[in-house]
Amino acid sequence: MISRIAMVTTRRYFDWAATALPARFPSPRREGPAAAAAGENPAFGNPSSLHAEGRAARAALEEARERCARVLGVKPGEIVFTSGGTEANALVLFSLLRGPRAGGGGAELLYSAGEHPSVRENAAVLKELGVSSAGVSLEKDGRVSEGTLRRALEKNGPPRMAALMGVNNETGAINGVKDLVPVIREKTKDRAPAHIHCDLVQGVGKIPLDLQGWGIDSAAISAHKIGGPRGTGLLWLKKPLRPLIRGGGQEGKIRPGTEDTAGALALARALEERAGAALEAAYQAAADRAAVLMAALRRGSRPAAADGDQGFIPLPPDRTDRDGRFSPWILQAAFRGRHGIIPGEVMVRALDERGFAVSTGSACSAANRARPVLDAMGLDRETARGGIRISQGWSTTMEDIEALARAIGELRALL
Amino acid sequence: MISRIAMVTTRRYFDWAATALPARFPSPRREGPAAAAAGENPAFGNPSSLHAEGRAARAALEEARERCARVLGVKPGEIVFTSGGTEANALVLFSLLRGPRAGGGGAELLYSAGEHPSVRENAAVLKELGVSSAGVSLEKDGRVSEGTLRRALEKNGPPRMAALMGVNNETGAINGVKDLVPVIREKTKDRAPAHIHCDLVQGVGKIPLDLQGWGIDSAAISAHKIGGPRGTGLLWLKKPLRPLIRGGGQEGKIRPGTEDTAGALALARALEERAGAALEAAYQAAADRAAVLMAALRRGSRPAAADGDQGFIPLPPDRTDRDGRFSPWILQAAFRGRHGIIPGEVMVRALDERGFAVSTGSACSAANRARPVLDAMGLDRETARGGIRISQGWSTTMEDIEALARAIGELRALL
Repeated sequence: MISRIAMVTTRRYFDWAATALPARFPSPRREGPAAAAAGENPAFGNPSSLHAEGRAARAALEEARERCARVLGVKPGEIVFTSGGTEANALVLFSLLRGPRAGGGGAELLYSAGEHPSVRENAAVLKELGVSSAGVSLEKDGRVSEGTLRRALEKNGPPRMAALMGVNNETGAINGVKDLVPVIREKTKDRAPAHIHCDLVQGVGKIPLDLQGWGIDSAAISAHKIGGPRGTGLLWLKKPLRPLIRGGGQEGKIRPGTEDTAGALALARALEERAGAALEAAYQAAADRAAVLMAALRRGSRPAAADGDQGFIPLPPDRTDRDGRFSPWILQAAFRGRHGIIPGEVMVRALDERGFAVSTGSACSAANRARPVLDAMGLDRETARGGIRISQGWSTTMEDIEALARAIGELRALL
Repeated sequence: MISRIAMVTTRRYFDWAATALPARFPSPRREGPAAAAAGENPAFGNPSSLHAEGRAARAALEEARERCARVLGVKPGEIVFTSGGTEANALVLFSLLRGPRAGGGGAELLYSAGEHPSVRENAAVLKELGVSSAGVSLEKDGRVSEGTLRRALEKNGPPRMAALMGVNNETGAINGVKDLVPVIREKTKDRAPAHIHCDLVQGVGKIPLDLQGWGIDSAAISAHKIGGPRGTGLLWLKKPLRPLIRGGGQEGKIRPGTEDTAGALALARALEERAGAALEAAYQAAADRAAVLMAALRRGSRPAAADGDQGFIPLPPDRTDRDGRFSPWILQAAFRGRHGIIPGEVMVRALDERGFAVSTGSACSAANRARPVLDAMGLDRETARGGIRISQGWSTTMEDIEALARAIGELRALL
């Protein structure tokens, strides 16, 4: 017999907003990437092919489309499968390069200062190409208010497109899309209706959504944020648009490239499990865990901050333990240590060494130290640089929460 | 006991150019989509995250990149993972919208008339946006010759970009990229070097390639054409370019969106198995099967065409049984029946009913009856509409070949 010395490290994952743990969804039939990779997917064919293998793949793809549509409460024909949320956002934005250009000197594209880089950065590219754009300021809580939106509309005139994300990926701030849409509609009522796009990557499966009811025109969704496979997402598109990129005419000529049937089926399954009937209970559980976490962090922060200076600074600072303005799945916060606010990167590294995975802002810009979303909330530079993102998921436990709060408390006394 | 009546239908798949049968590659470790979907992939993290899970994912992604680069004989830093061949082609083409625009009235983009829709159709979009483009005519054999290329360059001036596919997806025609590149370089020698892009989706794993040696600047590759997963591909990019679409800065800021680590590993595996040491033997076996198929189709065509009118019309008609101008993996051909050339769609349907999956042209435009590539070869309309694509793969057997030739012979006597 060989004896081994095993070092067991418990990892506690708090970066679900970057990517979710891959889910083991109950599977009545073998389907999805696993089956496809194993050569067991009867729907391996190219859905555009006319033969039996192609028709089987087409049927599977359309089944996936119907299942996604059912969960989202929309029509199957409005679902366009994409390679993810980034592509879904870009697809909508770059359609601005086609079709007649609006004259009149106003901003053609309006987007909130909190948007994901796949909106914000592409707005800059579009500007370079002559599509005027303007940002909508955030309130101190990181949300777009009817006031900030109205001011942006008054300053920039009626846009051709507006991008308002559902849930911010760094702070969890929830935009009241339902109340914001009428503000835009009112401003554009005498013109061609603006296309209102909603990045719901951090919203779907996390908070209740009402795509049809909100009055928006499109929404971006990613599979890997809800336990589905990487490289898979969808664009809900109420009316067809003229996409910039063409090719083989797939997905109603909206998104070219051989369709990833297995990925689409896996996305459908992830939506059913996470955004379907189980959503309400999952949301409540996440809200309970968020409240316990924030309370524990507040308690843990007192000793080191006897001078009344809070050691736990939720961002925004007035976020309460149960605060409907924020997704309970995401908490952005800064922490005061022995020498002031601990830089976010230091905290991420120290927690990582102790077995906790958290991030600063978006993984999509982890290499970049700038924190434009926190800056847009009017936070001072030191606080913004101190922000870390704690994002929980479906398998996060109260024990994980307590361990994290304890570890943060210890680090605050140390750093 | 329950007795069942089972109807067993043997299917013979001859549409590998549309999509390959998913391969069961030998797997020394659990990896790829199968493992990811099952939640067993230790590299599930977001490669941009700084914590241990992120670093493990980053290491896996970079391992995949190195393995792909090794097979292709290029540097790892030159590999950009994409969602497939279509996206890789589009990424290069749309970079033309950025950077300084060439003046002078010539064509900025030159592309062959045989290019895949993801090049040809996007050239049309670019034209709409002010990027002038011009096609390079095909010879009767469907290839670009030094002569046709020289004429296009003389007529349109030195381009900023040229797109020359390696292997045509409908006819298997192989462009002599190595000999064509110097023709472009000579024309542009006093100017900024043109970017020469090569769509190698139907070339990789099928015929010998020499990315470095050919002198090209970029190449597009798709995983699902060589047994890898759908929604995965790569762009080989010798020098960085300014992509149109931005986002989270992934893949060296060339291709935004959370990286599909499992897909990249599966692509690396597919390249190793199909484009590595085994390529030469697979190519020879495919060439042998192609020769047997064409000989059998010729033999089978004689009785019905006693008047000397060939019943089997390879496209182009002068393609021989072992013809180095064509990929042995793809055969485009028309067949004469009792009432003239059988329409391609009729043939596809009739073969499908008999258990054979073939296509007309590209699956990417199966719904579209136009045959622009065959038209560009100067084929008459009736012959072009009669063309079907027979594409074989790694598990195609001589028995499959013989059965297909027999079935086609029977259909010719019937239709």
